[in-house]
Amino acid sequence: MNTVAAYHFGWIDAEGRPSDSGSGKAIRPALALLSAEAAGVPAETGVPGAVAVELVHNFSLLHDDLMDGDEQRRHRDTVWKVHGPAQAILVGDALFALANELLLQAGSRRAGDAARRLAVASRRLVDGQAQDIAFEHRERVTVEECLEMEGNKTGALLACAASIGAVLGDADDALADALETYGQHLGLAFQAVDDLLGIWGDPRSTGKLAWSDLRQRKKSLPVVAALGAEGSAAERLTALMTADTKKSQQEFEDFDEAEFAVRAALVEEAGGRAWTEAEARRQYDVAVAALGRVPMPNEVRERLTALADFVVIRQR
Amino acid sequence: MNTVAAYHFGWIDAEGRPSDSGSGKAIRPALALLSAEAAGVPAETGVPGAVAVELVHNFSLLHDDLMDGDEQRRHRDTVWKVHGPAQAILVGDALFALANELLLQAGSRRAGDAARRLAVASRRLVDGQAQDIAFEHRERVTVEECLEMEGNKTGALLACAASIGAVLGDADDALADALETYGQHLGLAFQAVDDLLGIWGDPRSTGKLAWSDLRQRKKSLPVVAALGAEGSAAERLTALMTADTKKSQQEFEDFDEAEFAVRAALVEEAGGRAWTEAEARRQYDVAVAALGRVPMPNEVRERLTALADFVVIRQR
Repeated sequence: MNTVAAYHFGWIDAEGRPSDSGSGKAIRPALALLSAEAAGVPAETGVPGAVAVELVHNFSLLHDDLMDGDEQRRHRDTVWKVHGPAQAILVGDALFALANELLLQAGSRRAGDAARRLAVASRRLVDGQAQDIAFEHRERVTVEECLEMEGNKTGALLACAASIGAVLGDADDALADALETYGQHLGLAFQAVDDLLGIWGDPRSTGKLAWSDLRQRKKSLPVVAALGAEGSAAERLTALMTADTKKSQQEFEDFDEAEFAVRAALVEEAGGRAWTEAEARRQYDVAVAALGRVPMPNEVRERLTALADFVVIRQR
Repeated sequence: MNTVAAYHFGWIDAEGRPSDSGSGKAIRPALALLSAEAAGVPAETGVPGAVAVELVHNFSLLHDDLMDGDEQRRHRDTVWKVHGPAQAILVGDALFALANELLLQAGSRRAGDAARRLAVASRRLVDGQAQDIAFEHRERVTVEECLEMEGNKTGALLACAASIGAVLGDADDALADALETYGQHLGLAFQAVDDLLGIWGDPRSTGKLAWSDLRQRKKSLPVVAALGAEGSAAERLTALMTADTKKSQQEFEDFDEAEFAVRAALVEEAGGRAWTEAEARRQYDVAVAALGRVPMPNEVRERLTALADFVVIRQR
């Protein structure tokens, strides 16, 4: 399993040669370390939490890529594509198990508390993925349902990441709760941006195919907002996508590129893109406001705010 | 996910109609409840541990059946066969996450301790499955490697089950350790019997195909013991199985039934069956001896012994 995990993290290539392909943005561990500092303890105190949330995140990537049939991540073939489905399942399971083990063995007085929060976040993460898959086969999904799904799929683990270092640092509930709120809404902002990139992202930056989310019939925020809008663009989009849900995955994948461009243009015309951009900003504002409600070192508050800035302006 | 989980547990059939297909032998929760009583607390104290170990066990069944391509379990189509691979992955993940969550939220003073033991057992469970899969592609596996694999795959979770109720009941380390030793060796006895049933089990009892483990090229104990023996039967078996490892899964599955019967007969002739029967008995003896080393109510010791008796004489 070491080989498969090392490939996933970008430390070796598909042939096993040393590589440095980058292991993702590491936003979750950064949050965990900052949250320890928010509680006035050294960043080191947050390390077991930082590793645990990153392991849980990567467990979900390994399994989600397989379930979604995604062949590329971070400009490289995904694990199931290189090492087969069984290894993707197995190594995902191993990372998840290891996350719990190392957190509970860290020896912190509050380790049980941190592990409980991680367990809740993990369960919500799986719930969110289940909702995401279910939505692909439904004709109608409301914006509220989509936000609930994204809150589970992305918000829960970011909320845990943003508070787990503080919990390990024995923070009081008010600080832990405020950091959790910050993380939850940062997650929703992150996902709104991800949804925008999933349709309009530059494949050279995202490392995914163009119109990636449309190819998978994802009911992401721009799509759901557009389908729920009024006007002729929304009506034409609804007619097209209702017909799409009846097609087989194969028929759908055989679509000409132009078919996806048409759907993307209709989502934009119906206002789905602008609404999602505004939603990312709204969630950002709620996240940053939560930081202002509790005492923490000013420098830490600034860095948490900078991290939120990065999330909403990122290109991948 | 509720529908898929309910199908897996035998509460509904593939069409969603109420059903009572039986949910397995429930050995792990039985152990967890008995282990609470061994510590002199009511069985109820062990309930969160009992549920957690049963959820982790079923998480592993869902994923293992998919990885191994097993189409039948408990006389019914497996989850991936009925609901598809994505649902088997997802619901497995959900059961695993839920196990940790409910254990840590049980509110017991020792919940963190119990969760830590469960996390170690879960990681070893995944390790064991990884070793099991790796062995299928290797020509040579020693009996020691096979026992280590089975200790991880089956022993670890039974060791956790047999001690988790006592831990939740605030037992001292000596009792928890003795129960863990009992569970570990009970697991090895269980797996030895499972390996015998995997080759010679009656399909009407096991709910699996005849020669099930041979069809999957499992390097189970009888096979490994036979391959490591001396004499002409072992030599013929080695020649056959060395050639087998070079065949594709499809070529292999197209084998005539008689091909598997030949291999089973050679395993028996080389002494693999008798050795594994003796090994089950040896592990049983070590398990039961561990119960004698610590004080516990006599009635509980008798019931734990009866459970071990059941494990070694069971037919499925």
